[in-house]
Amino acid sequence: MLAKRSELFKASDVRELLKLTEGKKIISLAGGMPDPETFPKKELAEIAKEVIGERGDASLQYAPTAGVSEFRKELMSFLQRKDVKVRGDDSVIVTTGSQQALDLISRVFIEREDVIVVELPTYLAALNAFTLSHPQIVGVPVDENGMRVDILEKELKRIYGEGKSVKFIYTIPVAHNPAGVTLSIERKKYLLELASKYDIVVIEDDPYSYFVYESGVDVTPLKTLDDEGRVVYLGTLSKILSPGLRIGWVLGNHYVIDVLERAKQTADLHTPTLTQYIALESIRRGLVDKTIEKAKQVYKIKRDVMLDALTDYMPEKTWWPRPVGGLFVMVFLPSLDVDTRKMLPEALARGVAYVPGASFFANGGGWNSMRLNFSFPPPDKIAEGIKILGSLAKEKIKEPKGPITPESFYTM
Amino acid sequence: MLAKRSELFKASDVRELLKLTEGKKIISLAGGMPDPETFPKKELAEIAKEVIGERGDASLQYAPTAGVSEFRKELMSFLQRKDVKVRGDDSVIVTTGSQQALDLISRVFIEREDVIVVELPTYLAALNAFTLSHPQIVGVPVDENGMRVDILEKELKRIYGEGKSVKFIYTIPVAHNPAGVTLSIERKKYLLELASKYDIVVIEDDPYSYFVYESGVDVTPLKTLDDEGRVVYLGTLSKILSPGLRIGWVLGNHYVIDVLERAKQTADLHTPTLTQYIALESIRRGLVDKTIEKAKQVYKIKRDVMLDALTDYMPEKTWWPRPVGGLFVMVFLPSLDVDTRKMLPEALARGVAYVPGASFFANGGGWNSMRLNFSFPPPDKIAEGIKILGSLAKEKIKEPKGPITPESFYTM
Repeated sequence: MLAKRSELFKASDVRELLKLTEGKKIISLAGGMPDPETFPKKELAEIAKEVIGERGDASLQYAPTAGVSEFRKELMSFLQRKDVKVRGDDSVIVTTGSQQALDLISRVFIEREDVIVVELPTYLAALNAFTLSHPQIVGVPVDENGMRVDILEKELKRIYGEGKSVKFIYTIPVAHNPAGVTLSIERKKYLLELASKYDIVVIEDDPYSYFVYESGVDVTPLKTLDDEGRVVYLGTLSKILSPGLRIGWVLGNHYVIDVLERAKQTADLHTPTLTQYIALESIRRGLVDKTIEKAKQVYKIKRDVMLDALTDYMPEKTWWPRPVGGLFVMVFLPSLDVDTRKMLPEALARGVAYVPGASFFANGGGWNSMRLNFSFPPPDKIAEGIKILGSLAKEKIKEPKGPITPESFYTM
Repeated sequence: MLAKRSELFKASDVRELLKLTEGKKIISLAGGMPDPETFPKKELAEIAKEVIGERGDASLQYAPTAGVSEFRKELMSFLQRKDVKVRGDDSVIVTTGSQQALDLISRVFIEREDVIVVELPTYLAALNAFTLSHPQIVGVPVDENGMRVDILEKELKRIYGEGKSVKFIYTIPVAHNPAGVTLSIERKKYLLELASKYDIVVIEDDPYSYFVYESGVDVTPLKTLDDEGRVVYLGTLSKILSPGLRIGWVLGNHYVIDVLERAKQTADLHTPTLTQYIALESIRRGLVDKTIEKAKQVYKIKRDVMLDALTDYMPEKTWWPRPVGGLFVMVFLPSLDVDTRKMLPEALARGVAYVPGASFFANGGGWNSMRLNFSFPPPDKIAEGIKILGSLAKEKIKEPKGPITPESFYTM
């Protein structure tokens, strides 16, 4: 009795894996969970008590669909402090996590058969959200410096040459999930030039630029470089305060935000009022900034443990970009004969979980890769997990070839 | 650059009105907000502090898409205590308010041009959610005893006679929103017989049966009378604890719940963990039951004030059903020449807001009606508001005819 559409609602590898490893003694490099060590529990407990006890008439009541006005204002200031440019004709909407923003964008922008551009690889859950609206998806590979804008240009020429157009370009410019790469400032500018030339909307998904572990990295958002109001900017508190609050936002031209607001009204009426008030006070009292500082310290250590272990244990010619932030390292094994989906049951049998990289490739490529999370497991488990994966990979791969990178799957 | 679909995301009258009257000195009978007097602020503040302070590693972290396991179990027990039958093959999913449940049901069940049956009138936001999937909507009028199952039977004969079938019947059996009517036990049984005969899913939306103000009313859910597992049951804490938590649920056959879970994963990954933990403890500690008792007292008084004022001030032959619960009275003015949409600006000018009834009619009928909320305004404002509306209606209607009821719009 279900709609055909319901077949499209696939359970994601990540989530199924999380279920699989629940309660078992497995080193999970699969999820994307923050380290609960970074949660400011004591302060949040106080804030929650206050916003209910003292402002309960408002914080427990229905709220406007776009979000609690006071919170939206505070959010705008917060973003400006983080060097995200807010234009005069911009508006912001609070979403139930960034996931809802992706879903609303899919529903509001994509017509069946519309062309959209994503990175190879890209965020799995974005891919799932977009797929529900039946677009044609064009993938542009990344390298260490983010999206290959030269290949983007070639693709745009081809697409427009065929008389088609592109609805939007979706990108995660800083500390990419899953690839861990960061778009260089030159490429950012060129991406915007291309978007301007062809008049294309840019969806900038930015969960990670708020807590980059290294100094000297240019993390200027595309939103800030954009002079034309074409960038729609997505952010979230999931990694810099708490994912359990499910607070995300979209900043962009007020016309786009208005339509997203109407779509959200049908989707869930509004994001919980209480968690918005908690988020508001957390930003106002500097708790988010404090959490960011703590998260940077915790994750830098863990990232370095993972990078060192990869160097120590992976087969030679294995390729992985060094992430300046975020929660993941993506590892490309040095053989096209190895399939990390097929390897997964063996890895689980030896006590390690990861997400097979092919899930993140819109074109079915990347089967030699895996996404490895370093934010959740303790450092010693990270090292142990990588050692196990390394020796498994070495057993599978007798003659390493490489490096094999996302570009290897571009012209499949 | 937007999808055609985006035109379907209409701003609802209710929400636009709420915006319009914000901050103004207007007696709003338009919204559907609980009285904040019923919010157990002190207790919720303590619970929130505890679940963050003592269980923050879990309550601030990501959660499974279907909901926090412990909460889902507690919810099952709660429902069973409220005489909602939980079958062996049932499962429950936590949603971000009931609104999300309606949206997910629309996405999972309805194929373009599928026939669905709703009441005349029905819940506006359900209508909006269903419309996004482009169904053919068939309306069956209600009277004081809820859906006219005799007319339902006639419609089913017609639809199936034309070789079509019905995807689901959507009903709000107890203290209907907007109509305030309650389905009699005989009609409930007959509705299920018809659903069984034609093999149709029944979507039972039940925000109100938990706090009926009168004794002796049969509020047995369809879910409890259903021997075949065809009822999908929706509930919410919005009216019995706090709407700002956005906690809703769907109880039904595990196969349906699994598909809803996969759809929800793309929609918002999961409902905030924190509000689920707060809800869990609120149910466990009897706070929800306590709030229900308080809400009953508060709302019974307000309802009676509204009913008395209607009797005192409305034109003769005006029709309204007496609600045994819920938050609304729906008033049908005694003339087909009066259009409450056109009357609204005048009402606002005199200081009263309401929702024009036509918004709740899938077939465009009901233009002489209005939905009046009694849960939010203070009793004296309710009386004052009705007095103003009554005198406005009397000015408009020189020769009352009637009663005009939903059935008047059935065969338009």
